[in-house]
Amino acid sequence: MKLLIGDKNYSSWSMRPWLLFKHFGIPFEEVLIHLYVPGTKPAILAQAPTGPGKVPCLISEDRSATWDSLAIAETLAERFPQHALWPRDPMARSHARSVSAEMHSGFGDLRSNMWMNIRASFPGKNATPGALADIARIEAIWCNCLDTYGGPFLFGEFSIADAMYAPVVMRFKTWRPVLSEASAAYMDRVTALPAVKAWIDDALRETHTIPYQDVCP
Amino acid sequence: MKLLIGDKNYSSWSMRPWLLFKHFGIPFEEVLIHLYVPGTKPAILAQAPTGPGKVPCLISEDRSATWDSLAIAETLAERFPQHALWPRDPMARSHARSVSAEMHSGFGDLRSNMWMNIRASFPGKNATPGALADIARIEAIWCNCLDTYGGPFLFGEFSIADAMYAPVVMRFKTWRPVLSEASAAYMDRVTALPAVKAWIDDALRETHTIPYQDVCP
Repeated sequence: MKLLIGDKNYSSWSMRPWLLFKHFGIPFEEVLIHLYVPGTKPAILAQAPTGPGKVPCLISEDRSATWDSLAIAETLAERFPQHALWPRDPMARSHARSVSAEMHSGFGDLRSNMWMNIRASFPGKNATPGALADIARIEAIWCNCLDTYGGPFLFGEFSIADAMYAPVVMRFKTWRPVLSEASAAYMDRVTALPAVKAWIDDALRETHTIPYQDVCP
Repeated sequence: MKLLIGDKNYSSWSMRPWLLFKHFGIPFEEVLIHLYVPGTKPAILAQAPTGPGKVPCLISEDRSATWDSLAIAETLAERFPQHALWPRDPMARSHARSVSAEMHSGFGDLRSNMWMNIRASFPGKNATPGALADIARIEAIWCNCLDTYGGPFLFGEFSIADAMYAPVVMRFKTWRPVLSEASAAYMDRVTALPAVKAWIDDALRETHTIPYQDVCP
């Protein structure tokens, strides 16, 4: 399987399925496509003509394309039942799908004000009321899950739900909103995962930049 | 199981899981909560305190909550394997998940410019470049799926993917963008489904209104 991803420093949506492959040891070939250059969309469409021309996109052995981080996650969970990509307990799994879907379709204020830029540091900036409300909701989700399932990750062991929130951990490290101790400790555990460390290390080594995302006026 | 939904005239996200219950004949109790009144969020949180206080929300027999239309859809697909909520073929299923997830997280211009209001008629209004680009992408998805799987619905028989796009069919009936014959015929087939007709009939009979969504300047 081939996973098309964007620049690791910026591509929050790409980070999610990439972490799943890496963490669960599922073999894959990674194809990195630079974002925000004229060739970006054509390069993706060349491999997945029926998709939206966006990353992440999974190209299977039969050359069929699966796009969108959550669709790729569900597809991997189904193809590799030997790995607990979702929690094994049905009630926990429904809960994990709820918080994953909530992240997938929501938190627009956080996304637009605090974009992912692993190399950057913008502490205290862009803390709009909308972004702060999103952050409060994310902390409530984390806190409830860690309390309910006992940690160390949202549903016990690392699952799709943690992968869905991993880019938020990166955003919080760049923008440094005020967070509870429990949230900070969860972020440290996510950041210490070998798969997450590998993604961050790759991001730090990248040389392609998206200039307008490197500044926060 | 109890499904919390919003006003049928306006609540596009509620329509999706409701259609799945109705179409596949899964028994459920419907709890309608009026949207945009002071009691909306407290009423939802009273039943699902760990969720975001939004509809749709599924309350299971054990009182656990599953929120978000896509998480509810995946949960139903898993609990009722006797029904083909997703296509049975794995490659078609990945494809169906891709277009469903694309709808779930995207099409923001369409959403904000052409909200769902089944009773209203705003032909030709708010056709911004962004909304038109979203519409073009939706038509490309519909056309590709109907060509690939032969219809009458996106993946042959009615599935979660059609439920995800059903609110868009409602929007298109209100705003009447220029559409291909194939799209118009697909919309007619969706609208003729007994479950969809039942939702529309209920919407037409509702008396609670959201005044600012009933006008388009």
